[in-house]
Amino acid sequence: LKTKLPKVGTTIFTTMSALAQQTGALNLSQGFPDFEAPQALREALGRHAMAGNNQYAPMAGLLRLREAVASSVLLHRGVAVDPETEISIVPGATEGIFCCVQALVRPGDEVIMFDPAYDSYEPAVDLAGGRAIRLPLPAPEFQIDWDRFEQALSNKTRLVMINSPHNPCGTNLEPEALQRLAEFAERYDFYVCSDEVYEHLVFDGSHRSVLQVPGLRERSFAHFSFGKTFSVTGWKTGYCIAPADLTAELRKVHQYVAFVAVTPVQHALADFMEAEPNYAFQLADEYRHRRDVFLNALKGSRFTWTPSQGSFFQLLDYSAITDEPDTILCQRWTKEYGVASIPLTPFYETPPKSSYLRFCFAKTDSVLQEAAKRLCAI
Amino acid sequence: LKTKLPKVGTTIFTTMSALAQQTGALNLSQGFPDFEAPQALREALGRHAMAGNNQYAPMAGLLRLREAVASSVLLHRGVAVDPETEISIVPGATEGIFCCVQALVRPGDEVIMFDPAYDSYEPAVDLAGGRAIRLPLPAPEFQIDWDRFEQALSNKTRLVMINSPHNPCGTNLEPEALQRLAEFAERYDFYVCSDEVYEHLVFDGSHRSVLQVPGLRERSFAHFSFGKTFSVTGWKTGYCIAPADLTAELRKVHQYVAFVAVTPVQHALADFMEAEPNYAFQLADEYRHRRDVFLNALKGSRFTWTPSQGSFFQLLDYSAITDEPDTILCQRWTKEYGVASIPLTPFYETPPKSSYLRFCFAKTDSVLQEAAKRLCAI
Ligand SMILES: CSCCC(=O)C(=O)O
Ligand SMILES: CSCCC(=O)C(=O)O
Repeated sequence: LKTKLPKVGTTIFTTMSALAQQTGALNLSQGFPDFEAPQALREALGRHAMAGNNQYAPMAGLLRLREAVASSVLLHRGVAVDPETEISIVPGATEGIFCCVQALVRPGDEVIMFDPAYDSYEPAVDLAGGRAIRLPLPAPEFQIDWDRFEQALSNKTRLVMINSPHNPCGTNLEPEALQRLAEFAERYDFYVCSDEVYEHLVFDGSHRSVLQVPGLRERSFAHFSFGKTFSVTGWKTGYCIAPADLTAELRKVHQYVAFVAVTPVQHALADFMEAEPNYAFQLADEYRHRRDVFLNALKGSRFTWTPSQGSFFQLLDYSAITDEPDTILCQRWTKEYGVASIPLTPFYETPPKSSYLRFCFAKTDSVLQEAAKRLCAI
Repeated sequence: LKTKLPKVGTTIFTTMSALAQQTGALNLSQGFPDFEAPQALREALGRHAMAGNNQYAPMAGLLRLREAVASSVLLHRGVAVDPETEISIVPGATEGIFCCVQALVRPGDEVIMFDPAYDSYEPAVDLAGGRAIRLPLPAPEFQIDWDRFEQALSNKTRLVMINSPHNPCGTNLEPEALQRLAEFAERYDFYVCSDEVYEHLVFDGSHRSVLQVPGLRERSFAHFSFGKTFSVTGWKTGYCIAPADLTAELRKVHQYVAFVAVTPVQHALADFMEAEPNYAFQLADEYRHRRDVFLNALKGSRFTWTPSQGSFFQLLDYSAITDEPDTILCQRWTKEYGVASIPLTPFYETPPKSSYLRFCFAKTDSVLQEAAKRLCAI
């Protein structure tokens, strides 16, 4: 059987998490918390299973959860979105992004994305028959080069995929980036797929969503993750916000891809968001603390870094230590020093000579301190 | 925004379930049980949420759940499958089928499916750039016409999609059908996508899986549903069994479509299957009883029928009552008589003059009796 995805192997997350487990290394590779989700949220899941909420939810998601999302968007961003026609609950932002790409991209369409980018974007475009055009985000700032961006635009440009806070880089888009993007979007008539799953984990300043930008709001799909916000990545539930006409197209695809997200999970999330509408406000402080615990404990190591601006992730530059390729080094250090991370190369189409590893700091203080101690020995 | 799926509207399940809710009708439309899943299964969900099993599972599914599936396949079918390389846990059989189609079908490939067919098959083929070729299953037997089948085969035939027990018809493939299909598959070198989500709900004789047929086993993806078997359709979890090389391609797509199914759900299913390995054996009797309660109470009505051979569904023929189109009648009777069903037309590419409505009998006896009583008044 000849593969349709010749570039695709097993995701690096699967590989590194498996290696961490085999070797007993501290797992700072795949992005998930090692601490418990709020007790009330976990209790709610069992409660709804016992209460008999175990059959199909409506395809677009439980209305009460969509209403809770609308309240939260109003509270955090001052933006009104219609729960009926503009919010769709999906089994994870990955599915939302996949459906958004399938809904928009036709064979031959061009899709601009950046390099590095989260690893699911390009296969989604490939499967839709589109052509992914990857524009470099030069280290160490990882910001968009607007001249190159403008050169890449054409009447074939159908979609631009952005991601802020950025995975794997932990950078935020510059404040004026969304404004510039809006101008280009109107001029060149493309759509925007905005991956904002780490929206609440922003450490300096606050996160601006495409939802808040006139010109982008009308032509964007914004993707969010309950899993990242509420520390339940394994509940695989997210949501997509887009204008009604775009939402209608997303749902047409979604109803045949996964159809619907898990019912008791949706009820549990709705209960929790209704009871604790302010929960997400504390997350920036909490995660800034985790980042700082990790970075403070790394002082005296031979790594260098720019502090993460957002997300679960901190890049460490190992160029002062070795010039080994990151994919090999990452596996070797997992085995030798007992700390698993993620190399940057798999996120690139055209990897530069990169000397970064990505560490997930969504971990308890003691794990971060022990990991840093081990990394100081390198 | 011009749609990529011009034929697609809102699924008929969404439409009819919504109408049932608005009108307070008995909902025999969308296929889900109105009774509780086993208590031990529901308790297990809450237990795993409290025990902290809330982060990402491995992409292919928890190994312990795949092992429970392998044991179950051995127990029910005497077939050995490898949990590591041949079983993938997916967020519902719909996602498994979508990924299977995306993994196999290239632009221009032909995919043979039947008419009527479950409504997600054709959009999956369309999005992959394939060409769906629909072969009629003539009422009232709804069996494959093998001459037409052979005529439809060519060197472009990439995939054949079968479904037994059949949704919406409630028929099983004839015993010799899989044998014939195996011969054609070897001769014409196509793959098979076999939707067997109602495998345990077979009322006369037993269900034969593609897994049990030499010649098909090697070239088939078989799709199953925990939701249907364990009465938790809202848990949206299923599995796909295929040879290792086909499974590898399915997973390449799956990892970028939804990535992984819900962790506490997978643990709860594994617990339950380990504790009650024989659970599924009773289902045929249980559902045969439900079917018979419904059909017995319909004696004296003006409907006619052939008893369902399998699945959640019973077709009723209303040709003795009216010649109104099924889609209009279905909505009218929902409002006037308080019983929601599903018309057959939406499952067809080329609807014949059809006079069937589909009723889901995965309901408690009293609901089935009340529904039948109302239908007797028509
Ligand atoms: C989809 S698994 C990986 C989780 C994640 O977002 C990451 O580690 O980058
Ligand atoms: C995917 S929702 C519908 C459930 C079902 O399989 C059916 O009613 O046919």
